[in-house]
Amino acid sequence: MRIGELSARTGVPVPTIKYYVREGLLPAGLLSSPNQAHYDETHARRLRLIRGLLEVGKLPVAAIGEVIRAIDDKERSVHNLLGPVANALVPEHGGTADAETERARAKVAGIIERRGWQVGADTRAGEALAAALAALERAGHGAFAEVLDTYAEAAELVAGADLAYTTQVAAREDLVETVAVGTVLGDAMFAALRRLAHWDASSRTYGTPQQD
Amino acid sequence: MRIGELSARTGVPVPTIKYYVREGLLPAGLLSSPNQAHYDETHARRLRLIRGLLEVGKLPVAAIGEVIRAIDDKERSVHNLLGPVANALVPEHGGTADAETERARAKVAGIIERRGWQVGADTRAGEALAAALAALERAGHGAFAEVLDTYAEAAELVAGADLAYTTQVAAREDLVETVAVGTVLGDAMFAALRRLAHWDASSRTYGTPQQD
Repeated sequence: MRIGELSARTGVPVPTIKYYVREGLLPAGLLSSPNQAHYDETHARRLRLIRGLLEVGKLPVAAIGEVIRAIDDKERSVHNLLGPVANALVPEHGGTADAETERARAKVAGIIERRGWQVGADTRAGEALAAALAALERAGHGAFAEVLDTYAEAAELVAGADLAYTTQVAAREDLVETVAVGTVLGDAMFAALRRLAHWDASSRTYGTPQQD
Repeated sequence: MRIGELSARTGVPVPTIKYYVREGLLPAGLLSSPNQAHYDETHARRLRLIRGLLEVGKLPVAAIGEVIRAIDDKERSVHNLLGPVANALVPEHGGTADAETERARAKVAGIIERRGWQVGADTRAGEALAAALAALERAGHGAFAEVLDTYAEAAELVAGADLAYTTQVAAREDLVETVAVGTVLGDAMFAALRRLAHWDASSRTYGTPQQD
């Protein structure tokens, strides 16, 4: 199909499609004449992935490029493909060396050990957890870390459901897309469910059924 | 204390303190002479709350104003105080009336009913959940909604731990601050733990212990 049809099919404006090609996010169309490029289903699928990562994941274009290069590197095993995808979905923290962060890192190593998780505390997710724990301590709520074990148990429950969905997906590109979309929208779903559960728990604890 | 001491104690610059007073976030100091205002411990505590909501919660000043008016309205029950705080922490969605959103709202009502939660589907959190479910469907992953019940179970577990921490806090203003900080940093903690659990589950499912 021509770029106009690709645009109509996917709802992505033509100049935006051209921008993605220039940024290396989308392969160029096949030239059928010097100024006529043809696009196919793989372009439409890739555009859906980009839009999903942008709109749902709120990923910056550079992070999307990282994810897409991992998809295109066919040498990678599935686990080593999903690692960079997962990392691209975690904002970079790391490097901080203050006392709160050091104590937080020890807590992260502790929870990973207690759960028997096969993952390093120095991954981007481990660093993100340490950053949140350090921020808690700075805000005067270091004691809130007492919830960590319950949170980890809940996270395992959620990750089990996520994996059960993911393993139904076979194709490599679809798998990445599924992991990215599921990770990001799963966060949004869980955060919303947590607030609904808070509201319920609050109304049971502090009474007053009236909602405003 | 004078404004300079309040600034030194809290680390908030004097012009910023004056800005918060003008915006109605912080009560003005008591005038001891025409150009001398005195501040006390309540101002320091309020400043810590504002900074926490700004830096940790990334709340816009308008939303902080909403939260602070709820604290100052002593007629509100604790539950009716926490509601607006919780709402201020959820980005506004709502209003969308497309087919995906309508189907998503029905799913939200369904999960609330299955869990027996005392909360409306039309709360901001309910709308946020519907928005995430609608985005899933638009991204071609409507089937991922199969995880909803497991997520809700995990959310209850997490909310229970959150409430157990919150109910240790007595003072009304501290409670709001605790809820705001715990909600926002709790989201960050859970998202990080979920990714660690993913990594563990992925390495068990897809093999390859090597991490990059």
